[in-house]
Amino acid sequence: MEASHHHFVTARELADTFGGRVYGDDTTRICRFASLANAHLGDASFLSNPRYADQLATTRASLVILRDAASARAQGLNCALIEAADPYLFFAQAAGWLIARARAASVKETTIHSTACVDPSARIGKRVRIAAGAIIGPKVTIGDDADIGAGCVIEQGTRIGQACLLYPRVTVYHDCIVGDRAVIHSGVVIGADGFGFAPQADRSWMKIPQVGAVVIGNDVEIGANTAIDRGTLDHTVIGDGVKLDNLIQIAHNVVIGNHTAIAACVGIAGSARIGAYCQIGGAAGILGHLDIAEGTIIGPMSLVMSSIPESGKYVGVYPLQSQSNWEKSAALVRRLPEMRRQLKRQDHRET
Amino acid sequence: MEASHHHFVTARELADTFGGRVYGDDTTRICRFASLANAHLGDASFLSNPRYADQLATTRASLVILRDAASARAQGLNCALIEAADPYLFFAQAAGWLIARARAASVKETTIHSTACVDPSARIGKRVRIAAGAIIGPKVTIGDDADIGAGCVIEQGTRIGQACLLYPRVTVYHDCIVGDRAVIHSGVVIGADGFGFAPQADRSWMKIPQVGAVVIGNDVEIGANTAIDRGTLDHTVIGDGVKLDNLIQIAHNVVIGNHTAIAACVGIAGSARIGAYCQIGGAAGILGHLDIAEGTIIGPMSLVMSSIPESGKYVGVYPLQSQSNWEKSAALVRRLPEMRRQLKRQDHRET
Amino acid sequence: MEASHHHFVTARELADTFGGRVYGDDTTRICRFASLANAHLGDASFLSNPRYADQLATTRASLVILRDAASARAQGLNCALIEAADPYLFFAQAAGWLIARARAASVKETTIHSTACVDPSARIGKRVRIAAGAIIGPKVTIGDDADIGAGCVIEQGTRIGQACLLYPRVTVYHDCIVGDRAVIHSGVVIGADGFGFAPQADRSWMKIPQVGAVVIGNDVEIGANTAIDRGTLDHTVIGDGVKLDNLIQIAHNVVIGNHTAIAACVGIAGSARIGAYCQIGGAAGILGHLDIAEGTIIGPMSLVMSSIPESGKYVGVYPLQSQSNWEKSAALVRRLPEMRRQLKRQDHRET
Repeated sequence: MEASHHHFVTARELADTFGGRVYGDDTTRICRFASLANAHLGDASFLSNPRYADQLATTRASLVILRDAASARAQGLNCALIEAADPYLFFAQAAGWLIARARAASVKETTIHSTACVDPSARIGKRVRIAAGAIIGPKVTIGDDADIGAGCVIEQGTRIGQACLLYPRVTVYHDCIVGDRAVIHSGVVIGADGFGFAPQADRSWMKIPQVGAVVIGNDVEIGANTAIDRGTLDHTVIGDGVKLDNLIQIAHNVVIGNHTAIAACVGIAGSARIGAYCQIGGAAGILGHLDIAEGTIIGPMSLVMSSIPESGKYVGVYPLQSQSNWEKSAALVRRLPEMRRQLKRQDHRET
Repeated sequence: MEASHHHFVTARELADTFGGRVYGDDTTRICRFASLANAHLGDASFLSNPRYADQLATTRASLVILRDAASARAQGLNCALIEAADPYLFFAQAAGWLIARARAASVKETTIHSTACVDPSARIGKRVRIAAGAIIGPKVTIGDDADIGAGCVIEQGTRIGQACLLYPRVTVYHDCIVGDRAVIHSGVVIGADGFGFAPQADRSWMKIPQVGAVVIGNDVEIGANTAIDRGTLDHTVIGDGVKLDNLIQIAHNVVIGNHTAIAACVGIAGSARIGAYCQIGGAAGILGHLDIAEGTIIGPMSLVMSSIPESGKYVGVYPLQSQSNWEKSAALVRRLPEMRRQLKRQDHRET
Repeated sequence: MEASHHHFVTARELADTFGGRVYGDDTTRICRFASLANAHLGDASFLSNPRYADQLATTRASLVILRDAASARAQGLNCALIEAADPYLFFAQAAGWLIARARAASVKETTIHSTACVDPSARIGKRVRIAAGAIIGPKVTIGDDADIGAGCVIEQGTRIGQACLLYPRVTVYHDCIVGDRAVIHSGVVIGADGFGFAPQADRSWMKIPQVGAVVIGNDVEIGANTAIDRGTLDHTVIGDGVKLDNLIQIAHNVVIGNHTAIAACVGIAGSARIGAYCQIGGAAGILGHLDIAEGTIIGPMSLVMSSIPESGKYVGVYPLQSQSNWEKSAALVRRLPEMRRQLKRQDHRET
């Protein structure tokens, strides 16, 4: 299922690169990985979870990575095999390497599509691909080996690091910085104005200009349709190795520490500071102007309303119930103060 | 308010096609539907909800569909009328038909805008429209009668079914399948990488390549800015007739059964399996690796944390209160274990 | 950090325009604002929050706006100063003015990029900029001084007001109206179909055509990747001065009163009517077909399930706890009816 249909590698070459012992024809060529169930001739697959062991009997893969070649042979699997201690790790490394290799092979020198618009003042590195309809503004810098997808818009003064991969239709506003090796998916918006408005005497809102920027470290991945706003004065900062899923909102002046991972649909309000190595569950919310300690884990759909000085696992979710049970429990949640008073009164009577 | 300003139909033709009895001039021509309040000369409207009966007196519609023509005449409504048993159903069918008809009339043969980029290896069906700035990659297949909006990006190897309607700025990544008659709104991203990372010894994350795809059935509608990630190894699967609202997140390897409807802002985590005919309320969340029974109804903003083997209506929402009451009840939610102990102690003393 | 690097203003001119007394060289020229920490030569900055007073000693700003020039001089700040009663307000007004001025200077007459597609029937005002790859459909109207960003798509019959600023990759569907001075960020989708489907006898869904539109007042700002659906029959209406943050979902036929501000990730269901001057917290949800009183404040991640006839502050959030405490409290939330019965029984025994 990879774009790289024509870049083959042999079983031998894979084993030499990623470790493991080859069984069967070590000249077997594959060009991509697929599941045991979906693999076709010319694909590699792997068996990691024993739950899928049955599929060895029927897979059409040309090469399978697994822990126990003898047992697979006993099940009648006749394709080439690589016996490896951790087939899943082998897959993750080898599949990533195949994709990167195909990409590198396809772009040997900087290529700008005829329908792209690149400002003459932009500085474009070596082996850069700029796809159809992309628009690169004045004084933009694009690092070596970067890949700018179709319809991307990179505005004035922004710097995109080396070997960045921007999928189609990413927007990066002016004067932002994206580190090396970023992977940014379609629909991402980096550097839009933070939501800054001051109330006026007539109850209308005055816009506070957002003159900061967004600064993103190295090795960051950003999922589809996620938005990261520019800072009001100082910058919104995303640390090295941060992984952001889809449809996340990062408000102005948020700071996210290195290697923090954030699941989809999370919203982080202005000036929140998230430590390094945190894990934020899907659709969680984090209010503004607070600090979350390094290594904190926030459960899904939980709202952080004040700083978390001590790392740990935190959750705040109303438990799911049948609608009729929920109606009863929710009514009583509202009456908790009354229940509490009743308890105290009874305690008082007894003592 | 429809794009089809110049395709007229007569009251007679509508009644012949969708049933009902015409009163007044059956040659009355209309080109679109609008509400009683907004309709202008040349528009059709309808009365279904008695709450709007007053508007019959003042509507400027040229044709009104209603249940009781005599009563409308008595209120002085002099335009053409169609008396039908279910005016809302008549509207839904007739308005949809008018839109489809106008579209069909405007595209009699395949039309590719001069600013679109279509790879020579793409296979484009009959009567396809490819709008300005759209980008169609290598080996893409576009079915007959499909309409690819401005600025859409369809990447290598993807197949778009017959009569699909992609609004502007949709992205479909490589090697995905979209069934027939899909309606996909602007900003949708199909096939971006799932959020798959393995923790490393140094606490950084290793990317797990996402080599599955997205497979979407027939008659699916997908709302604006919704994201559907590709599978890690196997595919993310959206069944026939599924309706997805705006800003939804569907993670890798999710499977959604036929005719399930999901409201806006819902997030579904990896490998969740949602049965057919489910209804998921807005901003609900569904954790990964669980099963939801066919026909289940999940309330808005409720989090499903474990499998639901039995269909029914499920809710989990903290009840809204005034801030001061909420502060009291929320404090006591935290003290529920203490209240419980107190209750038990009292029970113990008494017995 | 602004796009306008070459439009200078003197300290004197700023003081004359926005009030305040100049200290030092009043011919000092600046072109933009930045924080004290980030400012470079040629930038203005300001001191409003005393927390940042230390930064006066090290800032490289050429001009600083502050409350107390004498004290700053005593700290050794030698650049030009403007003493103003409210430096933050001075910044907000002056920075906004600088940006607008630079924009006005750069577009002296209507400019349509060679890669933009403008239908001959579109009516384009004076001093309009239409950027690369933008697509303007038939019978669209673009007001004077509007700025249509790269890759925007404006469909047939839509009207964009004067001095609107559309960032790259905004989509406005057909026949919508956007008032004057709107600021619309990247990825916004206005006018996609509302989520309207009627259940059929075979449990599939029939699409209800959405023939209303979206009508947006003056001075509205809309954040990145927000979606506003068109009405089913009547229109979805966004009042004057409304401010919408990123990734918000506004369903069909919602009406939002003037000057209401809505934080990111909020979802508003169909036909909800939000009064003027409301403030809706991030990721809150509002169910459909209900009314919220003018001036109501809804807390973050809270769900409004019924009308709010009286303004006030409302919240509904499960309190965050350590996971082990949450497990205990959540289990007891489910057992609240039982606890209630126990309390009643004890009360009964005692009395």
